[in-house]
Amino acid sequence: MLTLYHGPNTRSSRIIRLLMEMEVLNQVEIRVVGLIRQGNIGAPDPANPHPEGKVPLLVHDGTAIRESNAIMLYLTDLFDSPMGIPIGDPRRGEYLSWLAYYGNVVEPVLVGKFAEIDHPAYFATFRGLTEMGQRLAEALADRPFLLGDRFTAADLIMVSAFTFAPQMAPDIPAVRQWIERCQARPSAAALQKHEAVLAAETPAA
Amino acid sequence: MLTLYHGPNTRSSRIIRLLMEMEVLNQVEIRVVGLIRQGNIGAPDPANPHPEGKVPLLVHDGTAIRESNAIMLYLTDLFDSPMGIPIGDPRRGEYLSWLAYYGNVVEPVLVGKFAEIDHPAYFATFRGLTEMGQRLAEALADRPFLLGDRFTAADLIMVSAFTFAPQMAPDIPAVRQWIERCQARPSAAALQKHEAVLAAETPAA
Ligand SMILES: N[C@@H](CCC(=O)N[C@@H](CS)C(=O)NCC(=O)O)C(=O)O
Ligand SMILES: N[C@@H](CCC(=O)N[C@@H](CS)C(=O)NCC(=O)O)C(=O)O
Repeated sequence: MLTLYHGPNTRSSRIIRLLMEMEVLNQVEIRVVGLIRQGNIGAPDPANPHPEGKVPLLVHDGTAIRESNAIMLYLTDLFDSPMGIPIGDPRRGEYLSWLAYYGNVVEPVLVGKFAEIDHPAYFATFRGLTEMGQRLAEALADRPFLLGDRFTAADLIMVSAFTFAPQMAPDIPAVRQWIERCQARPSAAALQKHEAVLAAETPAA
Repeated sequence: MLTLYHGPNTRSSRIIRLLMEMEVLNQVEIRVVGLIRQGNIGAPDPANPHPEGKVPLLVHDGTAIRESNAIMLYLTDLFDSPMGIPIGDPRRGEYLSWLAYYGNVVEPVLVGKFAEIDHPAYFATFRGLTEMGQRLAEALADRPFLLGDRFTAADLIMVSAFTFAPQMAPDIPAVRQWIERCQARPSAAALQKHEAVLAAETPAA
């Protein structure tokens, strides 16, 4: 049994979008929980088993899986779908690299920008928005999506940075077109609708 | 064919240690490259295909794989060894969570501490050393290693934080004993010896 602890319009929304794209949303129980949101609004929810009160958290047959990129990899390895790249496929290494890069680099770069961090050790470790744009532009120079002709979880997690923070989106034509391509998919609108309904049902937490 | 672009005594050293533990070091060509080290010493090496001149970078049959945690997962999925947890094993989700947690949280927390970052958005996203110690202590409360009786790549990457920055190690008995247990393994001394030899052979870069 699979349970996703979820907060509407948060980092866990992209897990909902992934499940929609994989056509397995009906195989996962979605439990909406309260959490501390931006601006220090709300509180951790005792119903959420995440040790820090965060979302997303996926529980599969009693095992808790944390971190968005780990959850996405776990789900795309569990269910057969075009959203993942299986072991043995020559693109598996690139797939793992994008998922890791999102968490290891993109999140710290965006949070660093937001928090106006300007420290040489920070830049040395994570680099900045410029390098992030370059990495995307290189990958997209000769293909519509990061791993080729198909939209995968790598696109989904990478593009989530720019749907969340559009002002951080690289101003590079190939990257902007890729963002549009990702967001033109039915799952983008379906997610918005899904989350609006959930948010309306949820007591302000 | 597998090639690891490596700098002695850097983040890529733990890939060497992993290959030693897996007993497949002889199946990977190790190419030592120059890089910018702490204190802004050295320069990116044109022989390194990493787009930012960083190590580690693994190249498998022409595909470049970046990010330490992605490389470790790729290798433990590629070679059968007790260092990984295969798909289908009930601990797979925990394994992926630790690898992701290391990159998504531990590195930003340590760099944040080093750079003396004190910003509420930073803490909200990554939390701090206290929470990191708590997560380790919880996992180690009833078992010698993070995933049970066996030392895996999850231990290897998590402990690398504290061999690199011992002053950041949580002062919690279960965690300190785990660090000692990890570092008592022959691979810890073998790595040091391996890296000392490589460093002596390498022109100061
Ligand atoms: N590294 C985690 C971050 C998760 C995270 O910070 N989620 C936010 C929602 S956007 C949260 O739960 N915040 C509540 C809190 O930090 O207490 C991931 O990628 O899954
Ligand atoms: N997120 C990367 C970080 C790699 C990294 O920053 N490596 C350092 C060596 S410890 C490096 O190559 N520095 C040279 C540079 O940044 O130019 C990983 O975990 O693999």
